[in-house]
Amino acid sequence: MKTTRHLTLLACSLMLFACQQITADSASSPVASARPGNAFITLGTAGGPEGEASRSQPANALLVGDDVYLVDAGDGAVGQLKKAGLRLPQVKGLFISHNHFDHTGGVLAILGLRMQLHAYNTLTIYGPPGTKAFIEGLLAGMEPARKAAYGMPGQEWKANVEVKELTHGSVVELNGVKVTAAENSHFKIPENSNLEEKAKSLAFRFDLEDRSIAFTGDTGPSDAVAKLARGADLLISEMMDIPAVMESIRKVNPNMPQRQLDGIEWHFRAHHLLPSQVGELAANAGVNKVVVTHMVPDISTEAMVKHYQSEIGKLFDGEIVIANDLDRF
Amino acid sequence: MKTTRHLTLLACSLMLFACQQITADSASSPVASARPGNAFITLGTAGGPEGEASRSQPANALLVGDDVYLVDAGDGAVGQLKKAGLRLPQVKGLFISHNHFDHTGGVLAILGLRMQLHAYNTLTIYGPPGTKAFIEGLLAGMEPARKAAYGMPGQEWKANVEVKELTHGSVVELNGVKVTAAENSHFKIPENSNLEEKAKSLAFRFDLEDRSIAFTGDTGPSDAVAKLARGADLLISEMMDIPAVMESIRKVNPNMPQRQLDGIEWHFRAHHLLPSQVGELAANAGVNKVVVTHMVPDISTEAMVKHYQSEIGKLFDGEIVIANDLDRF
Repeated sequence: MKTTRHLTLLACSLMLFACQQITADSASSPVASARPGNAFITLGTAGGPEGEASRSQPANALLVGDDVYLVDAGDGAVGQLKKAGLRLPQVKGLFISHNHFDHTGGVLAILGLRMQLHAYNTLTIYGPPGTKAFIEGLLAGMEPARKAAYGMPGQEWKANVEVKELTHGSVVELNGVKVTAAENSHFKIPENSNLEEKAKSLAFRFDLEDRSIAFTGDTGPSDAVAKLARGADLLISEMMDIPAVMESIRKVNPNMPQRQLDGIEWHFRAHHLLPSQVGELAANAGVNKVVVTHMVPDISTEAMVKHYQSEIGKLFDGEIVIANDLDRF
Repeated sequence: MKTTRHLTLLACSLMLFACQQITADSASSPVASARPGNAFITLGTAGGPEGEASRSQPANALLVGDDVYLVDAGDGAVGQLKKAGLRLPQVKGLFISHNHFDHTGGVLAILGLRMQLHAYNTLTIYGPPGTKAFIEGLLAGMEPARKAAYGMPGQEWKANVEVKELTHGSVVELNGVKVTAAENSHFKIPENSNLEEKAKSLAFRFDLEDRSIAFTGDTGPSDAVAKLARGADLLISEMMDIPAVMESIRKVNPNMPQRQLDGIEWHFRAHHLLPSQVGELAANAGVNKVVVTHMVPDISTEAMVKHYQSEIGKLFDGEIVIANDLDRF
């Protein structure tokens, strides 16, 4: 009995330690202590499952005062959050644009490391249909580790997570920010295919007290996204240089039949945005500034940055930024 | 019908494209083309769930000719692999030392991005009891996304994964490498506690044709690990500077009762290795070289490197390396 009591105390101590660490770290964090206002941080700016050595997988952080919300969370999102000077237990919510794993690969680490850090706050995960099944599956798989915890008695971990699925037009009111979802065209199926759509992909608009930020998610041309982004101060947009990618495919596969190439190009053009289409979207929506993320291929030189700014700028006369990992807006 | 046929062809084309890309990329990779022999790469050298901005979460890659095996895979493992010049589809196996999420947080991204990259090879995941339930849960959660894939007909993804659970003494024979597992003391429970152990934690020994590498996993002092590592050329060891961590806890929590501090310190000392104990283990095992990873706290200056080398060197006269992310051995 004495041993059990000692161990329970030990477990409590460890939890207390974790909490005090959280409090101490939060207090010393410039974001938490200085209340510098709101920021959108591009944690990971690579596009697609292949990724880039110089860019982390898609993930973003929205700061609203002391509250942190993740917007997509690919592989490495927790590490990128740390590099941005933020701690995982500060995250109150995660908005998932769509269930492709380049955008969700970091969710297991988020759920698991929150448990290990004894994060007592509830993490709310918002995403399209399928998100509940996704998180429930992960949590089921995490059960053996959750129960074993650090191998001490009375010390099972807790996930403290809830899921809210969103569809076109969904609105979420949070402390200091109103979030609106719209279905974009990333899962657009070919015309006349009579195929039931299996998945939905969302764009989000974040209306903060001081400004509004629209986030396209992965999308092709979409009137719904232009409408959602109407008049926003900042548009965070995906982009894919399809001719450059097609050229690379042709180079790597010189004998690929033309109809195969056509098929691939159809997919890219239906489900992603060309640089000129980013400009068109920004102009149609009447935003002040566009930030490009989800780079395919990589944009690694100043000349490439200027080239894409010029392409986007043909139709849009606001500010154009090609984002890097950890940029703050 | 015509449309369906077109779409099926499109799906096939995309898969073919992915495969050809894989082939092309592998051919251009120095690792794949030059067959430079074997290497152990410390992909992520941080320790614990809190992590460090300058170090990725625990993950390693073992290269055996053209084959790549991951040894633990915390958050960001896929990104670190990319930085090491390796592609995810090259990975044939993953060895999980124990089911703490700082060591497994990257597994969702591994499973998911392999699907999106149409990796046709089977990934075999080896780990302690609980690993099957872990992977089954993840795969169940991934079903909606797997079925939706890129939203095209006939294009469901495939996980192509199998799990093999290992216990103390398990041996796995692979092409060019024999792997032996031993239970370490990371889940050691207090004496007289009469509590059933809920979890197992493993150390691994990799006997390659040219040399042998022992990997402690997370462990406290352990005769089983010393025996497993006996005569190995290279020992990859965890380390925790417990006095430094305790000092930091006392500083952050000046009013924490002594018995709470004692409890925390018991946990650290039972389940992790002091610098001197790393030296003791290396000496007892009679290895040629020790590489320290899983740093708690961070080792960020040359003076700190020298200090820890000196501490370890009091009992061990072989080569001592404090690893950084992406170091190759």
